[in-house]
Amino acid sequence: MSLKYAVVGTGAIGGYYGGKLAESGQEVHFLFHSDYEYVKEHGLKVDSVNGDFLLKPINAYNSTSDMPKCDVVLVALKSTNNHLLKDLLPPILHKDTVVILIQNGLGLEADLQKDFPDLNIAGGLAFICSSKIGAGHIGHFDEGRINIGSYSCSEVHILETVKMDLDNAGVETQILDLEKARWMKLVWNIPFNGMSVIMNTTTDKLMNNAAMQELLREIMLEVIRGGNEAGEGRYNIPESYADDILEMTRHMTPYAPSMKLDYDFHRPLEIEYIYTRPIEEAAKYGYSLTRISVLEKQLRFIQAQYL
Amino acid sequence: MSLKYAVVGTGAIGGYYGGKLAESGQEVHFLFHSDYEYVKEHGLKVDSVNGDFLLKPINAYNSTSDMPKCDVVLVALKSTNNHLLKDLLPPILHKDTVVILIQNGLGLEADLQKDFPDLNIAGGLAFICSSKIGAGHIGHFDEGRINIGSYSCSEVHILETVKMDLDNAGVETQILDLEKARWMKLVWNIPFNGMSVIMNTTTDKLMNNAAMQELLREIMLEVIRGGNEAGEGRYNIPESYADDILEMTRHMTPYAPSMKLDYDFHRPLEIEYIYTRPIEEAAKYGYSLTRISVLEKQLRFIQAQYL
Repeated sequence: MSLKYAVVGTGAIGGYYGGKLAESGQEVHFLFHSDYEYVKEHGLKVDSVNGDFLLKPINAYNSTSDMPKCDVVLVALKSTNNHLLKDLLPPILHKDTVVILIQNGLGLEADLQKDFPDLNIAGGLAFICSSKIGAGHIGHFDEGRINIGSYSCSEVHILETVKMDLDNAGVETQILDLEKARWMKLVWNIPFNGMSVIMNTTTDKLMNNAAMQELLREIMLEVIRGGNEAGEGRYNIPESYADDILEMTRHMTPYAPSMKLDYDFHRPLEIEYIYTRPIEEAAKYGYSLTRISVLEKQLRFIQAQYL
Repeated sequence: MSLKYAVVGTGAIGGYYGGKLAESGQEVHFLFHSDYEYVKEHGLKVDSVNGDFLLKPINAYNSTSDMPKCDVVLVALKSTNNHLLKDLLPPILHKDTVVILIQNGLGLEADLQKDFPDLNIAGGLAFICSSKIGAGHIGHFDEGRINIGSYSCSEVHILETVKMDLDNAGVETQILDLEKARWMKLVWNIPFNGMSVIMNTTTDKLMNNAAMQELLREIMLEVIRGGNEAGEGRYNIPESYADDILEMTRHMTPYAPSMKLDYDFHRPLEIEYIYTRPIEEAAKYGYSLTRISVLEKQLRFIQAQYL
């Protein structure tokens, strides 16, 4: 029996992964916000480096109370909107639903579990360069993998079905230790998201400056060491991973990370889950993310100037 | 016998202190750069909260080779121009001349001594809000004290005469342990100069944000601890000094530190002596100025975008 999917937050991330699943024949129900009317009429268009497609007609909704109960809910909201989940989720949950938080940072699942103690929660990490380029229109420029992992799923086999569905849809998917995967993703997100906002620039300009490159590497090492401490020896993220990530970024096309786009459009920044929680988590294990704390406070100052 | 003074770098700082000395009757010879022609004709005007004055006629020069040898040379260049001193100083030095570097940061005197091994060198720290507001025109808005100290003066009595001359000119002057005084001045300069550039803002806006205020305090504590380590127990700068400085800044009028003005006008930033040298000095004593290193590298990135 095939799974029924819901996408909560149909933007650059949710639109791409949910779109790929729907395009491959899965039943997917999409929650839209401002684009709802447009998409009802024109469908959802995805311009992808792996092939463009148009979902029309599409199962589009502007309220979860109109949606069916689903087996898998892909949450791809900005994490600054996660307080909305308390009201958004109940109409689409049955007792075995798995909610997958496709978001960056630490502590997302723990916060959701507080509101839904019995919910099966998983996390997802998207490795993708995509963005919303217009109403009902998503651009996908590079990468596209996703890593998923269980946080509190009573049965893991459902994640294996999700992986199979994604693989069938042309999305390379791995099932990993969620917390370790989240720390590893932060090795990119913490230096590049914050610094592109603080320096008001793009990844290529950051990489082209020797002093900045050294600082980015120092920050990556803090993340790696913090993660390894928090993993109590189970993660073994090698310090050479910092150099791998630098090398990867050096070969990326010039890129404005999502936090830079949030800053440019004067939207709330995802400081809490990408900076504050990792700092707090490492501190529990006696490790101080000192440089990252500087970035966190600079970001809080910057956000306070326009919010 | 009264001292003959030279001012090398007649801007907001050199123009004020040299101007006060000249106004009080001392013989002062001023080196000008772009304002030379203007000042020859119109004099040097100082609009001061302690009373305006005009020096006209004025001993103005556009080359030190036209200046007499002086007993005391007040150097008030931007430290980014200190490489010029090797050529600027020789014409105005006799064997007992004392050169006082009225500049912020660490390592200034050591660098000068390398070029002039036998020179009597002292340092000065200006506590003043002043700026150049036009050709031959300086505004003085607040404070105005100066602390001086010997670096390599063979006889200290000449600094006592300088103090007397400055006191007589209405400039409150103290003779202090130079290295300790330099570290203490850095407790303000390191957080506020750099952060006002990185956040592109003024002191009042920085102070109005709780996260930023916490970060500024943490940076101040790094300076204090670094200084105390470098002083090998002789300085005893109390950690409460950070709170005194925060309190002082809270009551200052909104202020763009000199590095912010340098940034706004796309001039070189005084990163070397205000950031790099203190970091290196503390490191010699095994103390890492971690947060300050973040600021240093961010500043190097920012400067590289326009220089």
